[in-house]
Amino acid sequence: MENNIFELQYAIDTFYFLICGALVMWMAAGFAMLESGLVRSKNTTEILTKNVALYAVACIMYLVCGYMIMYDGGLFLAGIDGGETLVEDALKASSENGFGGDSVYAGASDFFFQVVFVATAMSIVSGAVAERMKLWAFLLFAVVMTGFIYPMEGNWTWGGGSVFGLYSLGDDFGFSDFAGSGIVHMAGAAAALAGVLLLGPRKGKYTADGRVNAIPGANLPLATLGTFILWMGWFGFNGGSVLKLGDIANANSVAMVFLNTNAAAAGGLVTALVVARLLFGKADLTMALNGALAGLVAITAEPSTPSPLFATLIGAVGGFIVVFSILSLDKM
Amino acid sequence: MENNIFELQYAIDTFYFLICGALVMWMAAGFAMLESGLVRSKNTTEILTKNVALYAVACIMYLVCGYMIMYDGGLFLAGIDGGETLVEDALKASSENGFGGDSVYAGASDFFFQVVFVATAMSIVSGAVAERMKLWAFLLFAVVMTGFIYPMEGNWTWGGGSVFGLYSLGDDFGFSDFAGSGIVHMAGAAAALAGVLLLGPRKGKYTADGRVNAIPGANLPLATLGTFILWMGWFGFNGGSVLKLGDIANANSVAMVFLNTNAAAAGGLVTALVVARLLFGKADLTMALNGALAGLVAITAEPSTPSPLFATLIGAVGGFIVVFSILSLDKM
Amino acid sequence: MENNIFELQYAIDTFYFLICGALVMWMAAGFAMLESGLVRSKNTTEILTKNVALYAVACIMYLVCGYMIMYDGGLFLAGIDGGETLVEDALKASSENGFGGDSVYAGASDFFFQVVFVATAMSIVSGAVAERMKLWAFLLFAVVMTGFIYPMEGNWTWGGGSVFGLYSLGDDFGFSDFAGSGIVHMAGAAAALAGVLLLGPRKGKYTADGRVNAIPGANLPLATLGTFILWMGWFGFNGGSVLKLGDIANANSVAMVFLNTNAAAAGGLVTALVVARLLFGKADLTMALNGALAGLVAITAEPSTPSPLFATLIGAVGGFIVVFSILSLDKM
Repeated sequence: MENNIFELQYAIDTFYFLICGALVMWMAAGFAMLESGLVRSKNTTEILTKNVALYAVACIMYLVCGYMIMYDGGLFLAGIDGGETLVEDALKASSENGFGGDSVYAGASDFFFQVVFVATAMSIVSGAVAERMKLWAFLLFAVVMTGFIYPMEGNWTWGGGSVFGLYSLGDDFGFSDFAGSGIVHMAGAAAALAGVLLLGPRKGKYTADGRVNAIPGANLPLATLGTFILWMGWFGFNGGSVLKLGDIANANSVAMVFLNTNAAAAGGLVTALVVARLLFGKADLTMALNGALAGLVAITAEPSTPSPLFATLIGAVGGFIVVFSILSLDKM
Repeated sequence: MENNIFELQYAIDTFYFLICGALVMWMAAGFAMLESGLVRSKNTTEILTKNVALYAVACIMYLVCGYMIMYDGGLFLAGIDGGETLVEDALKASSENGFGGDSVYAGASDFFFQVVFVATAMSIVSGAVAERMKLWAFLLFAVVMTGFIYPMEGNWTWGGGSVFGLYSLGDDFGFSDFAGSGIVHMAGAAAALAGVLLLGPRKGKYTADGRVNAIPGANLPLATLGTFILWMGWFGFNGGSVLKLGDIANANSVAMVFLNTNAAAAGGLVTALVVARLLFGKADLTMALNGALAGLVAITAEPSTPSPLFATLIGAVGGFIVVFSILSLDKM
Repeated sequence: MENNIFELQYAIDTFYFLICGALVMWMAAGFAMLESGLVRSKNTTEILTKNVALYAVACIMYLVCGYMIMYDGGLFLAGIDGGETLVEDALKASSENGFGGDSVYAGASDFFFQVVFVATAMSIVSGAVAERMKLWAFLLFAVVMTGFIYPMEGNWTWGGGSVFGLYSLGDDFGFSDFAGSGIVHMAGAAAALAGVLLLGPRKGKYTADGRVNAIPGANLPLATLGTFILWMGWFGFNGGSVLKLGDIANANSVAMVFLNTNAAAAGGLVTALVVARLLFGKADLTMALNGALAGLVAITAEPSTPSPLFATLIGAVGGFIVVFSILSLDKM
């Protein structure tokens, strides 16, 4: 009967991973809508193609070798299957870890939850190089990023590997990243920055004498929809990163993460809306959306420990920074 | 081992709340798409801004003081956190309530499920005052509505408080509202009606001699998407309102609620489509969408007890009424 | 206490069905967006109306008699309710089946999961006859298809009934369809083919001298959104078809299904994108989207047993075939 309790916990933790993973997969749609809403309409098809293709490339490359590089699994996910022997293994692991111990869940659910994170990192790149990178060059980079670069830095951090055999980020420097503010979002942003520096500004961004041409989003309903999708998907992104649901302590933690993730997005949105109002004299929807996203990114480093009020303030800082970031980028 | 069973039940009930809450949060996107699809395209950005901003304002105000007013918690959600002491408390509560007793779940998940309801009430207002209320006035009202008005009437009903110390709606008058037909939808509608009476009709709604100018929706795919989103989110809205999942009786109840919610929406849609066909001689997509929403609102007062057939008929009544409501409003 | 464990398993399996069902319901929105994105803009409202109406018709007809025909239940779902006696029955069934035995869950959740499949089959028809079938004729066919045709072939297969009392597809011919490649997708496609043969090509599809007029999609962001929605919903479609979650073996199976479903879609998308690039010399977003959908349909016959690599290849075959199918249809 004790075994039955373990089996139920295993099933719950697996289901929790799968649902959170499905929500993160949904973020791919969010990025696609956000980006296609914010580019000029002549570039819509291009950005949509990039977004669906990068997601598929990420799924394939992480399956082929990325997961192996990051977590020392086998090539082509060898060892992850639904076979009978897995039940024995799981039951053994459950017994060893005990009820409140480490999470024990289906290996396939772990891969599913991980693979959608890779796609998220690559989606961030696609937004940054929108309107200035050719499709096939972009997809080639997606192959390298999702098959090798992300898995390598992922191995150094979540994978617990050492950096070129020299030192461990976690053990030697106390590095910690709850849900991927750095590992996913900054990694994506770093790749994006490299791309942007290489590619230069979008055609038409500057006039001949160096002044900025504002490029307003062509389809704000799509951009808004994309932001809502990302907001929703983020519950899976952060909530799933607790890695276990099936006891009181972990269930409390997952619930706090949902609450704080939502609070930070709200704080970021309102702050960006108000700051933009003070600076420009009118409401700015795009800034508000960016504020929500900045709040979400900000809380992702540690959404489980702050109080809800503090989480709102962390989001507000994100929303504040994003307005000035966009302004200063426009002036660069 | 009994404790382990309680812990699992706690985890399941918490997760069920969080997933249902995420679905209700998703309704915010539904309202945004529905409303931006139905206004004239010049007002699209304004309505989108209102929708994202009201959701964020609701999250912040309900966190600051709304939840305290409604359920006697602390300011800024003091007392809701992921700390260790909560595990002891939860275990104690679980033992006292027994397996089939009151639901015991993470406090944070309760707030999360409640806060998205507040936003829903405010979203209803935004639809009604679309195209006729300035953004910042609207947001100021959102602060009052989500921080004070909704929490106060919520305290009188779901919170179990007395109305100005005079009487109890539940105990003295037998008031009951399963998932918020009145508390959420009618409260939103009442606020909306007040706003509409104050603001008068939309500019361009009437010609100089008093005839109606039909204002067709500018973007019907968005309106349809919004309706589907609301339909989906309603499973969380009504399904989560059972408040417990983790035993046979409650699981049966949640399942019936999903089934009946879906049936009522279908009944409302088909009825509105057919009635509009008989009245106007042709199919009317907007009426069909309104019919589905009317069916959903109608079943929300009690989705757990009717038979599926009866739920379909309840939805059909909603779909029938909505067509004539729209017609008579047009004639007012 | 053993009873409590059964109750939890019952609750988990019910919730799993409901969430998967909600994801499949969401596919209705996916079809609506996909189809309205791919038709000419003059036909947008018509296709949207068909999509919302067919979903509602399917829900009503399957409730009235479809479920009875397919699974020998009662008319109007007699016998499915949330009443007290169900708890006794469920507890008895749980005890008889044992922990690892057949799934035991709320009858209402079973209906909910089944009814959204019927709508999916009908949605497939709506895409095929887009722009060439009148609304009310289409809805009349929806009544017949969802109330009688689908339930009848469903009874022969998943329902375990015999074909006109002559033979059993499963017992006599070893027919097996995990999640509905044939029962849902081919049934929809067969009805669609019949409709298309009867109705002929879309007006404007061919020039006077028989050459093809390409009819490009009017709204590719919508088509992309629809594909992402379908991709997400398919996790519920295939994942829920395992029919049980609450023990280690079944949880492993559900996780594999999520993983493989995702892998097949990715394989189909990349293959269609590359093949179209080789044939036409440029990327084709619509082909990529069709590739993902073809991969999803291909894996639906058996998503639980292939290795992830093999699932990717199954999807790739689907993506390959779909490009040539579209090409050869254009030449017919």
